[in-house]
Amino acid sequence: MAAFLHRLRARYHECDPQGIVFNANHIAYVDVALTELWREAFGSYDEMGKLGFDMVVADVHAAFRASVPFDAEVTLALAIERFGRTSMTTHWVTSVGDQTCVEGEIIHVWIDATTAKPIEIPDDARKALAPYAA
Amino acid sequence: MAAFLHRLRARYHECDPQGIVFNANHIAYVDVALTELWREAFGSYDEMGKLGFDMVVADVHAAFRASVPFDAEVTLALAIERFGRTSMTTHWVTSVGDQTCVEGEIIHVWIDATTAKPIEIPDDARKALAPYAA
Amino acid sequence: MAAFLHRLRARYHECDPQGIVFNANHIAYVDVALTELWREAFGSYDEMGKLGFDMVVADVHAAFRASVPFDAEVTLALAIERFGRTSMTTHWVTSVGDQTCVEGEIIHVWIDATTAKPIEIPDDARKALAPYAA
Amino acid sequence: MAAFLHRLRARYHECDPQGIVFNANHIAYVDVALTELWREAFGSYDEMGKLGFDMVVADVHAAFRASVPFDAEVTLALAIERFGRTSMTTHWVTSVGDQTCVEGEIIHVWIDATTAKPIEIPDDARKALAPYAA
Repeated sequence: MAAFLHRLRARYHECDPQGIVFNANHIAYVDVALTELWREAFGSYDEMGKLGFDMVVADVHAAFRASVPFDAEVTLALAIERFGRTSMTTHWVTSVGDQTCVEGEIIHVWIDATTAKPIEIPDDARKALAPYAA
Repeated sequence: MAAFLHRLRARYHECDPQGIVFNANHIAYVDVALTELWREAFGSYDEMGKLGFDMVVADVHAAFRASVPFDAEVTLALAIERFGRTSMTTHWVTSVGDQTCVEGEIIHVWIDATTAKPIEIPDDARKALAPYAA
Repeated sequence: MAAFLHRLRARYHECDPQGIVFNANHIAYVDVALTELWREAFGSYDEMGKLGFDMVVADVHAAFRASVPFDAEVTLALAIERFGRTSMTTHWVTSVGDQTCVEGEIIHVWIDATTAKPIEIPDDARKALAPYAA
Repeated sequence: MAAFLHRLRARYHECDPQGIVFNANHIAYVDVALTELWREAFGSYDEMGKLGFDMVVADVHAAFRASVPFDAEVTLALAIERFGRTSMTTHWVTSVGDQTCVEGEIIHVWIDATTAKPIEIPDDARKALAPYAA
């Protein structure tokens, strides 16, 4: 199901006075996991940029099911749900053990790395990301 | 339209290598603005807790329209869109001057401050928050 | 004594599971206050860059005296203690009411904005910053 | 020399508009590395708390030698330099490959986990931490 997994530890300074990972930091975790997906697919985020295109985040959604305590071993599971003409939707699930804690979607739009204008998803990118489709 | 406004500066360390506020930090900005709304409605976040109830974030959505550069004067506009039985949906818009940069919704669920179990929105809370309805 | 003051609120997500501002965030607060000092002295951080020089942080020290709780009204007091040939030392004090909470020094080194090489503190910068000397 | 090593990746959102890890985040990195040291020495930070004592950061110093770019593989090297009566000084070095990027000291003070008052470093703690002395 999940096409890409990344594991990390919930760090002390990412937790709030309730002792749990602060809600916005879960969105940052998704970015951390995506950086690792880009690394596997393209070599690295920097390598991806050299191909002449870039991605920007157009939309993000998160549903909070359970809290993630400090020092927990967290798994981020990513799967690309949909390739559009210029955009891509990735489903993500953040879990601790068997417990789904947060899940949502993040939508990226392709842009020209020079002009920052939206472009059709390049064939190179489609091929490189195909293994991560749901 | 907007029932509550909060202004802040985009801080240097909240910006990423593109020189713009990092996407997840926009969710943190919403929390900062809500803290000021709680202050106006309840006296403070701590005072709210003394009433025996608390709120947790159940869901958040953000649509990114334009980037917010370092040092920009940012306005957060909040309006409660919907009071449910145990939850409340707040629409938020982050803008710089006339430009809408990010907008979305955040859903809070009421919980008992001791047991952490969901409860109906208390009458005291409904009254205190009524002025912030859309 | 203090030549520049900046006030801010301790934000929820800047606090750790102990309910107090996380230690590293106090260093970020110093940066926030310095950005306001640059604004007053140079117009803005960006304006400062247009003068052809930049500053980098070479050294920072913090002594923690008391914790800063969530939602506290925090005052940052800055005073430039020493102008060297290429560097400048600023003393900073973070307080809540009459209580000194954290204090320390931060050392900046001037660099050429293009080559990033250290340069003597430009006369324009010395003049603009003179009012903030201890 | 270094008694404890921890490796991590420089994350995108930890970098500032210069494309390098923001200065305050290097202090957060030290905390991340120390959490791993506590894990090795005590089982975990939580286990350490169960022994009836806790540590608070009393002082931190950082000297910045070179910047750490996004996506760099960073090594934190820790060595306890000095055990005092109630405090402990740890030297830390942050490096990328052979390049020392940041280094400094962090001083912890032992406190009673219940009263938060300073206490002599407990024998259990001295023994558990002895392998990490410089």
